[in-house]
Amino acid sequence: MTSRRLSTAGQSISRETVFQAALHSFYVHGYDGASMRDIAKAGGVTPAAIYHYYASKQELLVDVINRFMQQSIETTQAAIAEAGGGPAEQLFAAARSHVLWNASDVVSSFVVNSEIRSLEPHNRRLNIAQRDQLQRMFDEVVERGATEGVFTTPWPREASRALVTMCTAVAGWYKVTGPLSPDEIADRYGYLSLSLVGSRVQVDR
Amino acid sequence: MTSRRLSTAGQSISRETVFQAALHSFYVHGYDGASMRDIAKAGGVTPAAIYHYYASKQELLVDVINRFMQQSIETTQAAIAEAGGGPAEQLFAAARSHVLWNASDVVSSFVVNSEIRSLEPHNRRLNIAQRDQLQRMFDEVVERGATEGVFTTPWPREASRALVTMCTAVAGWYKVTGPLSPDEIADRYGYLSLSLVGSRVQVDR
Repeated sequence: MTSRRLSTAGQSISRETVFQAALHSFYVHGYDGASMRDIAKAGGVTPAAIYHYYASKQELLVDVINRFMQQSIETTQAAIAEAGGGPAEQLFAAARSHVLWNASDVVSSFVVNSEIRSLEPHNRRLNIAQRDQLQRMFDEVVERGATEGVFTTPWPREASRALVTMCTAVAGWYKVTGPLSPDEIADRYGYLSLSLVGSRVQVDR
Repeated sequence: MTSRRLSTAGQSISRETVFQAALHSFYVHGYDGASMRDIAKAGGVTPAAIYHYYASKQELLVDVINRFMQQSIETTQAAIAEAGGGPAEQLFAAARSHVLWNASDVVSSFVVNSEIRSLEPHNRRLNIAQRDQLQRMFDEVVERGATEGVFTTPWPREASRALVTMCTAVAGWYKVTGPLSPDEIADRYGYLSLSLVGSRVQVDR
């Protein structure tokens, strides 16, 4: 879809330009505070150009949230699949990748986590299903570790949820100008995640 | 201040009514999306009644954020002071109280954590100072535990930050209708916080 282009008065406007303008506007003003006019201005396009790709502001929000959630799920799946068989290695890898993913796009992460309120009921249900899918991947690793006696926590469910939230929250404080690189932060969060579940096994990258 | 009242046409409007209407409107619409008219409507008051107490929407946001942050700081201070002398007991108590505090007011917690972007520069600096003060109380307990060898984590700073974010994030998923009471969640987060820092000492409530 991003290669499809709409030409207007010497401009060639892609769906991606409109998407990025909406993302930026939601980040700065919030969903309710960002008008279609604001979005058009942010993208340097006309409101008509937006409506060529999106029927409504709600469709834009759905696209912004869906893309990030879908990529969060795929990133986590890939990290677990590549980590080998042990739950400690898998949890370390999943936590690392979730930190890196959120730190790589703090703007999307913020909008995704603050504008669930603005999704219409049907879209909100789809979003909850995506969140559940992401959380479940972590839950399964933590539960397997607990069952196998590798993770000693008496609270695997709560540990798994706490772990995902603390990794997501990196987007809220990470600064490109900070003392640690995303990779260093991710390593430490991998370590902290294993502490959180009381892992008997340590993992070194 | 909350006992001061403005009478208009048979109504007696308190500053607290205006405050709660603003909090509700920021929660539902975001700061940019909530007009003074929305706030007046939510409180069942006139815009003039709002301006009697607050010179601007920014003043309302500052009040909403300041009150919650100040109470967060006082709640944490009290929890640490009452917990006795050991860093494990203090960390357990601080984490518990931070969870209970955020779960007790998920609306304020959300607004405080999503509308930092909407604070004007001077107000944002004050907010950062408050956040630093809150974080530092946790940092000091974790650092003392690490120095005394009670906490074994090689990453006390990161553990402390991760811990505060995971406790704050409870406000994002806690539901009154959920299976666990705030007290049960708080106990588990107390336990998880000690895991996170690799505590040699366990604490039972």
